[in-house]
Amino acid sequence: MDLSDKTIERICRVFGYLDVLEKRGVDFISSRDLALGVGATEYTIRKDISLLNITSYTRKGYKVEHLKKELGKRLHLDQKRKACIVGLGRLGAALLDYERFKEDGFEIVAGFDSNINKLERIRTDIEVFPVTNMEDIIKQKSIELGIIAVPEVGAQVVVDRLISSGIKGILNFSNTKIIVPKNIIYLNIDFTSALRFIASKFITQN
Amino acid sequence: MDLSDKTIERICRVFGYLDVLEKRGVDFISSRDLALGVGATEYTIRKDISLLNITSYTRKGYKVEHLKKELGKRLHLDQKRKACIVGLGRLGAALLDYERFKEDGFEIVAGFDSNINKLERIRTDIEVFPVTNMEDIIKQKSIELGIIAVPEVGAQVVVDRLISSGIKGILNFSNTKIIVPKNIIYLNIDFTSALRFIASKFITQN
Repeated sequence: MDLSDKTIERICRVFGYLDVLEKRGVDFISSRDLALGVGATEYTIRKDISLLNITSYTRKGYKVEHLKKELGKRLHLDQKRKACIVGLGRLGAALLDYERFKEDGFEIVAGFDSNINKLERIRTDIEVFPVTNMEDIIKQKSIELGIIAVPEVGAQVVVDRLISSGIKGILNFSNTKIIVPKNIIYLNIDFTSALRFIASKFITQN
Repeated sequence: MDLSDKTIERICRVFGYLDVLEKRGVDFISSRDLALGVGATEYTIRKDISLLNITSYTRKGYKVEHLKKELGKRLHLDQKRKACIVGLGRLGAALLDYERFKEDGFEIVAGFDSNINKLERIRTDIEVFPVTNMEDIIKQKSIELGIIAVPEVGAQVVVDRLISSGIKGILNFSNTKIIVPKNIIYLNIDFTSALRFIASKFITQN
């Protein structure tokens, strides 16, 4: 199955929205409302779902539970995965205790920082370790995902060490370009770019 | 000037990358390296820039400082803007002191929370207020952007109040769909969707 990044990205949002609907007790949703809920066109959403050979559509709309289950299977979103956070400044520490991760199947099982004082002071239920132990802990705990919130200057070193420890995917909050081998999947989350987009749009389009 | 969201979004990333290059003292960059730096194709980047009628290309590549300045002018990214944060839990508090915002021209001038104890305990240099004062403070300080990090269930109420206070753009960390009038620009930042994308991709494509 060879899906484009855009399709995978939309399906992930559809999956998240179906999860919300399921929790609210919604049984059916029309493709129109599903499209509205994830901010895409109805045509695109129907096409994405049909690409996965899912027949979940009835006269009342998509069956929420069924569609979510099938999308989860196809995109392997139904499995729990372990993640760690590197860099426990204010943002990293907030991510360590970000409750939604666990609810959504991503368990944060370790936090790392180079500052021992910070590790001693931090208040969290998650186990935290000095970065020197990173490789061992990642292997021991079979952690698949690394979330990095270290200062820009240290980001690439951390990335290289995560990859040599066997990490398969990286979510980068470090506001810097990172370089990874082709088999490693990564995504940057850049708050400033998001604000720039908003500011630029409300000026140019109003 | 009628640019697509995709173009605006890419230009914002180009602008951010040029800013990094400028700080590093880089004078010129080829369109190929610029494209690599922001994760787009060279063709797309050249087209985006040409849409803005910018002639910043020389034999040595784009002039970093000049291109950044011109993009900033066209997309109004060269103006400082005021923002506030609503919801001062761990994530909201971390965003309150997120240093990059200020460096990048977004000044956080107020934080709001409904919990008075939280407001008293929080350690920050930014002024914080009870949400009951939100409308007044936003108008007094001419705040244009609202960043919301409240629990899902309270998000829409906060959004409605931000909009009636004159906010023009919203960055939503609340993991829930929000409804806004057409003239209000908003963007959701969804950490879980990002992790799902990564996890799904490293499974399906390896």
